[in-house]
Amino acid sequence: MTPPHIISAGSELFMDALRAQGVPVTRIAWKPPAHGDETLIGMLFRLTAGFRDGNGVSLVDSANEKALRRILAANPVLIGVRPAAECVPILEKGDILLHAGPPIDWPDMCGPMRGALVGALMYEGLAASVKEAAALLDRGAVRCVPTRPCRVVAPMAGVVSRSMPLFIVKDTESGNIAYAPINEGVGHVLRFGAHTPGVIRRLHWISRVLAPVLDGAVRSLGGVHLKPVMAQALGMGDELHQRNTAASMLFQRTVDHALTLAAPDRDEESEIRHFLSSGNDQFFLNLAMAASRVAMDCAQNIFGSSLITSMSRNGASFGIQISHFGERLFCAPCNRPRALYFPGFNEADACPDMGDSAIVECYGLGGLAMGASPAVARFLRAGTLKAALSLTRQMRHICVGQNPDLPLPNAEFEGTPTGIDVRLVAATGILPVINSGVAHIRSGVGQVGAGYALPPPQVMHQAIAALLADLEAHAPPPHPLSCGEMDALLARQ
Amino acid sequence: MTPPHIISAGSELFMDALRAQGVPVTRIAWKPPAHGDETLIGMLFRLTAGFRDGNGVSLVDSANEKALRRILAANPVLIGVRPAAECVPILEKGDILLHAGPPIDWPDMCGPMRGALVGALMYEGLAASVKEAAALLDRGAVRCVPTRPCRVVAPMAGVVSRSMPLFIVKDTESGNIAYAPINEGVGHVLRFGAHTPGVIRRLHWISRVLAPVLDGAVRSLGGVHLKPVMAQALGMGDELHQRNTAASMLFQRTVDHALTLAAPDRDEESEIRHFLSSGNDQFFLNLAMAASRVAMDCAQNIFGSSLITSMSRNGASFGIQISHFGERLFCAPCNRPRALYFPGFNEADACPDMGDSAIVECYGLGGLAMGASPAVARFLRAGTLKAALSLTRQMRHICVGQNPDLPLPNAEFEGTPTGIDVRLVAATGILPVINSGVAHIRSGVGQVGAGYALPPPQVMHQAIAALLADLEAHAPPPHPLSCGEMDALLARQ
Repeated sequence: MTPPHIISAGSELFMDALRAQGVPVTRIAWKPPAHGDETLIGMLFRLTAGFRDGNGVSLVDSANEKALRRILAANPVLIGVRPAAECVPILEKGDILLHAGPPIDWPDMCGPMRGALVGALMYEGLAASVKEAAALLDRGAVRCVPTRPCRVVAPMAGVVSRSMPLFIVKDTESGNIAYAPINEGVGHVLRFGAHTPGVIRRLHWISRVLAPVLDGAVRSLGGVHLKPVMAQALGMGDELHQRNTAASMLFQRTVDHALTLAAPDRDEESEIRHFLSSGNDQFFLNLAMAASRVAMDCAQNIFGSSLITSMSRNGASFGIQISHFGERLFCAPCNRPRALYFPGFNEADACPDMGDSAIVECYGLGGLAMGASPAVARFLRAGTLKAALSLTRQMRHICVGQNPDLPLPNAEFEGTPTGIDVRLVAATGILPVINSGVAHIRSGVGQVGAGYALPPPQVMHQAIAALLADLEAHAPPPHPLSCGEMDALLARQ
Repeated sequence: MTPPHIISAGSELFMDALRAQGVPVTRIAWKPPAHGDETLIGMLFRLTAGFRDGNGVSLVDSANEKALRRILAANPVLIGVRPAAECVPILEKGDILLHAGPPIDWPDMCGPMRGALVGALMYEGLAASVKEAAALLDRGAVRCVPTRPCRVVAPMAGVVSRSMPLFIVKDTESGNIAYAPINEGVGHVLRFGAHTPGVIRRLHWISRVLAPVLDGAVRSLGGVHLKPVMAQALGMGDELHQRNTAASMLFQRTVDHALTLAAPDRDEESEIRHFLSSGNDQFFLNLAMAASRVAMDCAQNIFGSSLITSMSRNGASFGIQISHFGERLFCAPCNRPRALYFPGFNEADACPDMGDSAIVECYGLGGLAMGASPAVARFLRAGTLKAALSLTRQMRHICVGQNPDLPLPNAEFEGTPTGIDVRLVAATGILPVINSGVAHIRSGVGQVGAGYALPPPQVMHQAIAALLADLEAHAPPPHPLSCGEMDALLARQ
């Protein structure tokens, strides 16, 4: 017979009183759901309890399961590389530029996004100077349109203009297509708002030399399957947002001999190999983004599903979409990333969170796959494998499943957490962690650090309120949910 | 006030008696040193307690520290690729072949080593058939010499003949040189004893096409530093014996554009790229071996040092060297690896442990760096990160230090355990784990599995006895060592 053991959860008052009397107490880390926000708890309860099918199964749960199944089935394949105007017809005339994140007008944009737009106009030969480019944008002669409706995903400023080459990624299961620009490398690059002559020259080289050869190589191979590359890379230290070293090499190895045959001459081939092999460890990021986009698009428009199908930022606002609402955006002002800064820079230099790259977190990569990457965990300040694995474990609490095709060897080969449910985010108070680069807040400077960002919690609450209202307006009359079922939902923290 | 807590170590008798009386007992995993072998304990005691300098510091300890410092300082660089006869003059005439491991005569060799020798003679055009080749070896017209004195390290059968190209690796600190053949890939390969026409054809292609281009590329780069490649690879799932996927890609990336410029034409370049990129994930192993060899050679011949500077096997015997004795070998019959077998094969097909590759374990890679590689830990049957990390932790108990230049991100960036001390191996009973491929026991079949092997413990005991005898004969008269110091040595398990 062992003596009784006292466990305390919630308020610390009871524990303190017992300890004062010399009674040993074990403290359990428990917090009330939804930070104790009664309105939110009420909405979550109604959302989950209120809508059920004939068998008593929650409408939202089964919609989410359906969405997850579709995401997991996706099989993204890179099929070619073509100029943006061929992929996105509205770019043809050259009077439109794309930018990352939710819609935003030129006057409201942050420095690096303005810098990238200016750079794009100079690259296209539509402006000879920064001043000329800014004047075109000021007087509305060139319009800015978000990437999202054009099926483009682009990191950071995410500026795409007519002659920039785009990767074309196709999901062989659904037929979905997504496009992403070619990663320029690190340092002074357009996506961080830099537009020096070197940046513009590199962009010209990418479209003139690199893109046609990549296109030829990829087509000669009949496409490159991206899921096996991502799966291998997760076992080689990449989380596929902040770190793509292994994936970039694996991709390069896949196209390696085809590249030799596709290159017009030795000098160009040598230039291409130099570009791919030296300091371009983030090359694969844009492919991971396009792969994530086609997969997440499979989960769009499922009635009742509360899964997040997209997260994106424009340096001012942070937008999410949930499956049920298709393309409807829920936005709020975006946060500054918490980051490690390059020497000479600090938080005051940081532009708020920016880019379409958070699509990879929706697919279970990046911050959600942090367990794959102790090196990236260093940006979490506690740069240990333990911290990395514990973050991925935490992310499992806000996801409805895991991806068996993308296993994490460090986490005993369990799949990446996949399918972020806004209900679980609100109930647990755990926000999805987005790994991210940090741009300088001023136009033209470039990258100043790397770290992670969190979505503003309001977007989750807005989506929940809207979903509840829409279901109450359009779903069959509610059935009650048992307290046990509700407890099970709320207890997932 | 908490009640007293009882901890039990050693014999289970006391614990059982207390538990029977309902007293809670915590069991500590403690074993008597050296498995309780009193002769061995006595030798270890005399070896450590008996020889000290004027400041009372153990001679063996300070010799080992010196050896470790030299190992850690090594900076291996690949400087070229040349035909074996240029590197190893005794091969010039063509009547000598090299084999891996301790010396062994043709009649005593295992099947795969015989198969590889036969293959080498056919490759050199010295025999037209297996029968002819065997006859040459039978009548002693061709002699077999171990790789070791020729500064060559070669995996598995380790057969090297005059026209095979060798990597030349130089330690820029000591000037030490080591040579290793070019890895042929996996499947039917000479090193596993296969000698089909395809195997011979591939060897010709390696010497005729691949080697000159690699040599040109490496020389045009002024050499390739191997330590940064190994350091990065340890963060990408490689332990650099059983798995070299990342290191092979990182190496290939380093020579990538130089290779384009060194290749005589596009077809040959495409062939080379195909060879390097498709199914040749073990390409870097031979470079890791040569790098380990030059580093471990730095620790040779340090008076009193009990560090293991080499481990090698020939399918019959297992040999180790310790620093103090330079090239003197301590041998015993070698074990069969414990392995996972390819479909259709089992333990009865396995040749005993073979090859020079265990030099990488001496340098802290392979089995000692298992924590880097949960995928390889699968060969330990418990294929988890936990098992992998616990193995590396165990290996720390038999090593005198760690290599800060080769950190393990999975183990909170601690360096690989480095410098295996025979005293610690004997005192703890923990043998160094050697990751290894498994050859079929019959000539000509090839690889049948992969797993790990353990050295026969006798080699450790022989080395300890010899070192003690030699120190007693040549060292200054012994000073006593305090019991505390001896306890500290024996308690490292």
